[in-house]
Amino acid sequence: MLKVAILGGSGYTGGELLRLLQNHSQVEITAVTSERFAGKSISDVFPHMYPAKDLTFEALNLRKLAGKAELFFLCLPHKKSQEVVAHLHKANKKVIDLSADYRLKSPEVYEEWYKTSHKFPELLKTAVYGLSELYRKKIEKARIIANPGCYPTCIILGLAPLMGEGIIDVIDTDCIIADSKSGISGAGRNPELSYMFSEANESVKAYAVMTHRHTPEIEQELSSISKRRITITFTPHLIPMDRGILSTIYVPLKKNLKLVQAWQLYHNFYLHEPFIRVLKNGTYPNTKSVKGTNFCDIAIFYNQRKNSLIIVTAIDNLLKGGAGQAVQNMNIMYGFDETVGLKTIPAYP
Amino acid sequence: MLKVAILGGSGYTGGELLRLLQNHSQVEITAVTSERFAGKSISDVFPHMYPAKDLTFEALNLRKLAGKAELFFLCLPHKKSQEVVAHLHKANKKVIDLSADYRLKSPEVYEEWYKTSHKFPELLKTAVYGLSELYRKKIEKARIIANPGCYPTCIILGLAPLMGEGIIDVIDTDCIIADSKSGISGAGRNPELSYMFSEANESVKAYAVMTHRHTPEIEQELSSISKRRITITFTPHLIPMDRGILSTIYVPLKKNLKLVQAWQLYHNFYLHEPFIRVLKNGTYPNTKSVKGTNFCDIAIFYNQRKNSLIIVTAIDNLLKGGAGQAVQNMNIMYGFDETVGLKTIPAYP
Amino acid sequence: MLKVAILGGSGYTGGELLRLLQNHSQVEITAVTSERFAGKSISDVFPHMYPAKDLTFEALNLRKLAGKAELFFLCLPHKKSQEVVAHLHKANKKVIDLSADYRLKSPEVYEEWYKTSHKFPELLKTAVYGLSELYRKKIEKARIIANPGCYPTCIILGLAPLMGEGIIDVIDTDCIIADSKSGISGAGRNPELSYMFSEANESVKAYAVMTHRHTPEIEQELSSISKRRITITFTPHLIPMDRGILSTIYVPLKKNLKLVQAWQLYHNFYLHEPFIRVLKNGTYPNTKSVKGTNFCDIAIFYNQRKNSLIIVTAIDNLLKGGAGQAVQNMNIMYGFDETVGLKTIPAYP
Amino acid sequence: MLKVAILGGSGYTGGELLRLLQNHSQVEITAVTSERFAGKSISDVFPHMYPAKDLTFEALNLRKLAGKAELFFLCLPHKKSQEVVAHLHKANKKVIDLSADYRLKSPEVYEEWYKTSHKFPELLKTAVYGLSELYRKKIEKARIIANPGCYPTCIILGLAPLMGEGIIDVIDTDCIIADSKSGISGAGRNPELSYMFSEANESVKAYAVMTHRHTPEIEQELSSISKRRITITFTPHLIPMDRGILSTIYVPLKKNLKLVQAWQLYHNFYLHEPFIRVLKNGTYPNTKSVKGTNFCDIAIFYNQRKNSLIIVTAIDNLLKGGAGQAVQNMNIMYGFDETVGLKTIPAYP
Repeated sequence: MLKVAILGGSGYTGGELLRLLQNHSQVEITAVTSERFAGKSISDVFPHMYPAKDLTFEALNLRKLAGKAELFFLCLPHKKSQEVVAHLHKANKKVIDLSADYRLKSPEVYEEWYKTSHKFPELLKTAVYGLSELYRKKIEKARIIANPGCYPTCIILGLAPLMGEGIIDVIDTDCIIADSKSGISGAGRNPELSYMFSEANESVKAYAVMTHRHTPEIEQELSSISKRRITITFTPHLIPMDRGILSTIYVPLKKNLKLVQAWQLYHNFYLHEPFIRVLKNGTYPNTKSVKGTNFCDIAIFYNQRKNSLIIVTAIDNLLKGGAGQAVQNMNIMYGFDETVGLKTIPAYP
Repeated sequence: MLKVAILGGSGYTGGELLRLLQNHSQVEITAVTSERFAGKSISDVFPHMYPAKDLTFEALNLRKLAGKAELFFLCLPHKKSQEVVAHLHKANKKVIDLSADYRLKSPEVYEEWYKTSHKFPELLKTAVYGLSELYRKKIEKARIIANPGCYPTCIILGLAPLMGEGIIDVIDTDCIIADSKSGISGAGRNPELSYMFSEANESVKAYAVMTHRHTPEIEQELSSISKRRITITFTPHLIPMDRGILSTIYVPLKKNLKLVQAWQLYHNFYLHEPFIRVLKNGTYPNTKSVKGTNFCDIAIFYNQRKNSLIIVTAIDNLLKGGAGQAVQNMNIMYGFDETVGLKTIPAYP
Repeated sequence: MLKVAILGGSGYTGGELLRLLQNHSQVEITAVTSERFAGKSISDVFPHMYPAKDLTFEALNLRKLAGKAELFFLCLPHKKSQEVVAHLHKANKKVIDLSADYRLKSPEVYEEWYKTSHKFPELLKTAVYGLSELYRKKIEKARIIANPGCYPTCIILGLAPLMGEGIIDVIDTDCIIADSKSGISGAGRNPELSYMFSEANESVKAYAVMTHRHTPEIEQELSSISKRRITITFTPHLIPMDRGILSTIYVPLKKNLKLVQAWQLYHNFYLHEPFIRVLKNGTYPNTKSVKGTNFCDIAIFYNQRKNSLIIVTAIDNLLKGGAGQAVQNMNIMYGFDETVGLKTIPAYP
Repeated sequence: MLKVAILGGSGYTGGELLRLLQNHSQVEITAVTSERFAGKSISDVFPHMYPAKDLTFEALNLRKLAGKAELFFLCLPHKKSQEVVAHLHKANKKVIDLSADYRLKSPEVYEEWYKTSHKFPELLKTAVYGLSELYRKKIEKARIIANPGCYPTCIILGLAPLMGEGIIDVIDTDCIIADSKSGISGAGRNPELSYMFSEANESVKAYAVMTHRHTPEIEQELSSISKRRITITFTPHLIPMDRGILSTIYVPLKKNLKLVQAWQLYHNFYLHEPFIRVLKNGTYPNTKSVKGTNFCDIAIFYNQRKNSLIIVTAIDNLLKGGAGQAVQNMNIMYGFDETVGLKTIPAYP
């Protein structure tokens, strides 16, 4: 049994890791931390988990923790995560970091968007961006996984098949737009006025227009796959539901591309992927159909009038967009079957 | 592998059975029927299940179906279910009937509430009311299970510990009130104005006040356990959420009963039950904490000012109140571990 | 034009007062306070009101404020309100206090439930409980109105017709139960984990079972109307919607009472009331039908099997249960038509 | 008093017209029709309106109806509306048609998108597109108003200031994208599976990608204002709330345009408009802030990295996107103050 620890386990992503890893046949959770709830049992903090594994949240004491596990899941705030990753890495531990701290390859870009310097630029080179479907080979050998953000996962998976040789030339890469709609759980578990029920319910709004921190992450990866500099316009929105992200991605074309070609392209690209479902023509993804699962649903529409593609993708922001993908990455790292602990049929409705 | 069929599999309860049974290690689904969707694949009707087991909905042809399975789950409308159960029983098959047709022991009471006569009164004697926690021994040997309604499950489990000898005398059995709040999925998957999003959202209402058909079922079982004639006041409400029932049950007492005694009573009564969680004093059940699971959460409050108990219970109406309990009953009938296919930690939020 | 001020105007009830009073043809808002937002304009704090009356939130400086208005609406926390009411009363101003501080006639009961002593017991005698329909004559002459709580308004209006001579003897007054379901806005506009969207959505729970502070207020008023000591069992619940309270009230009877009699009783009792709608037999109240209005909808059901009444009432918690009733009381106090500023047809859906 | 009739008054838009016109000081509703509910009173069909004006839904008998009113609001299905408009026009009545039948100037385009021919092409020339802010002068004299669709209102108002001389040259008019998010009430009041609570709640989906019938209407109007052929990409989405549309509109620029200039442009363009609120820089529109009102809120963001504008607009789909704008148009046609019956401050939350 692989011994794993969860650092920062009292938020929504931490809770999902606790849930998934308790159900995982190959691992044992040996420690979980929370500054706020140190000393409390899992069931005290998450009553819905009762009777949970007999574990108590402890404070983040790295010296004590390092000996307890081989793999560490980090759900810590950015900046804090930087140091903890470095410490654990030095102690020869493997890390899956769900914060943003090791996602951006360039310390300058990191500093620009996160307003703090990166103290371990050399580790940035070591870290592997954990989009499982795209970097499986690197993930197998990685010691530090930078687990992708929820929006980037949803958007990059929707665009990756178009970034390849032969097809990228057809795309007007300057004009890609991703319009994403997210449930409120993406905002985390801290009381804030905007995320109060009475404020967020029965309403929709855009936020962080042109300034959302997931933007450079999306651009870095698209550029990396396509081998050209790609920038995008990304607009996140909050909508009144618990979970889920739907991204509507607009891709103008320079030459014609028949729909069946595009569909075939996606179909082939994700042919053996257990968690990617390329929907039949005319089927619309919706977030309810992926809720509680690690699936990413993708539909492709060809807009003949404008000669453009419209790609629609749906994920559960806390699973494929967070804890689920983290477990998928662990499965890859340790040679487990990639779907262990993640074989869920969505409960509907 | 036990071969099972689902008759009437295209509604919400049928969908949940499909989901649970596909995940069940001991069974194989060999047939599923739907009049409306005969000829369509599971994934056509439930796109969220893609890629589902390779099965096609077929019409309800009992001659063809009888040979395909050993156990039949029936999610058919009442009246229709009567006959199908009788037919399958005669063909020596086991049946778990999720309709109301075999729940009421008295054909007269059935006719009074369901406005149709019961054509197989002798089978009513054979059928076992499938409230797993209360009738495990009988369920083991049953050939026809009348799977309980969602409200009755939630209410009877909340009252059963009080119905026993020694305690029943303390209760003013004439004045028990159960006030239940249900999510909209309880209304099924048929388009009706009342259950349209724009009608049901941002609203709460009582319905079927004093006339809900689950009333005689609750009374029959409470009377049976307590061995006296018990009638209750039951009021269902619809609230704007997908799933879940919360029941607030008011039990006036004739003599004093300290809270700790009541809690101990419940604790002991459900001591070894894998799906009943008697919450610590002061903890409030909520439906989110049981969503997607087979749990029934129970809290007990003692009202000193009025000398009464307030019992609050929460279930997922489609699982412990439907498909989940049906699978639990199957597990009991076939000697599987009772929790197979049902070991779910709730996803939160 | 009557000059009015709103003290504590940045919460939901304060916002509703700002909205209603800006639309009121007989009054002018001359001041509004908020500690948190002092110095900010109304539109800064409530962008949806833009372009609002040109007013800036100011700090609560009673010396400055007293000269600005004749009537003061207080949306301050309890305890704080005690003193402000006393100060304004001494300065010869009229006050409508939306806090709980002047609702309970007995300083002892107040202290028992609010865990703080009442420093102005003599003023408690002066204050009039502002349930408009019941105390119109007293309200006309009042200088201090204790505006009722949201739950008490919903419950007392549902029971008042039964509290009169001739009918009260038929009721088993020991066993009245009020089970209320409230939208989340009732919890106010302060960030707290329980009221976050992701916590409250898709869930229902009971809270403050047997300990809710509105209990003594309900009992005081029912006792006062009926001229006997009445206690009730009151259980509030939170359901996932913005606004509205539905109360299901169970009233056991000692003698028979035909439904038509009960309906006639309610019909006559509220015959000329502009804001009470006694629904036709068989019609179910729902909170959507009163949202945004000052209406209280009431339905009466007679339970023949148990010889009891079930009364279902619906209000908008922020209007008839708060700001709306406050304006109605002002209209009564100043001889305006009682419906000025409150003639709203609900927007549906 | 202007006598008005509502044809097709039992849906959501009809209900809103009934509400707004009952509150309107200058008009009297003299007839309302509904095939489904002919013979029933307004309160029977819309219990929330009780006590409504004493009117009974009648069948659509044009001979009887023509004499009853001077102005007719039509909420009929397209195709049906064609004929009724023609009939009333011939009878010398004024019409505000809320269907799509007279919005498209070209009968060919109409036939292409609505799959039925237009039988009164000559009347199309007479009809005025009722976007109040843009066509006020024509509306004043119009006898047939084609009241705009909900999405077109939200999108055209967001783009109109950019369509003028001097600015249109800066825009890459081929690449405008409008991504709209709508509440479920936009789907009307007919029971359909997709709009059931349990299907639509906790989910978001795109629909009618590239095929939505509002597309040609938007393009026609943008082309008309800008005096060039403009096509757009328009994607509607359904999100789980009752009311509201938020449109995120992406406008690539060919030359630079500073944000302050864009803001000033919008500010000036809508300077004297009572229902358009151009928000301060950095403020995000949300649908809650316009719910129940005739407002259209607009925010302008300049994307320096991509040299594009992002315009975000919010309306209530049933008001500014339907019944509210219809009443605004009536006010213009009859010389009433444009805001009569529409001066609503949003109720929040």
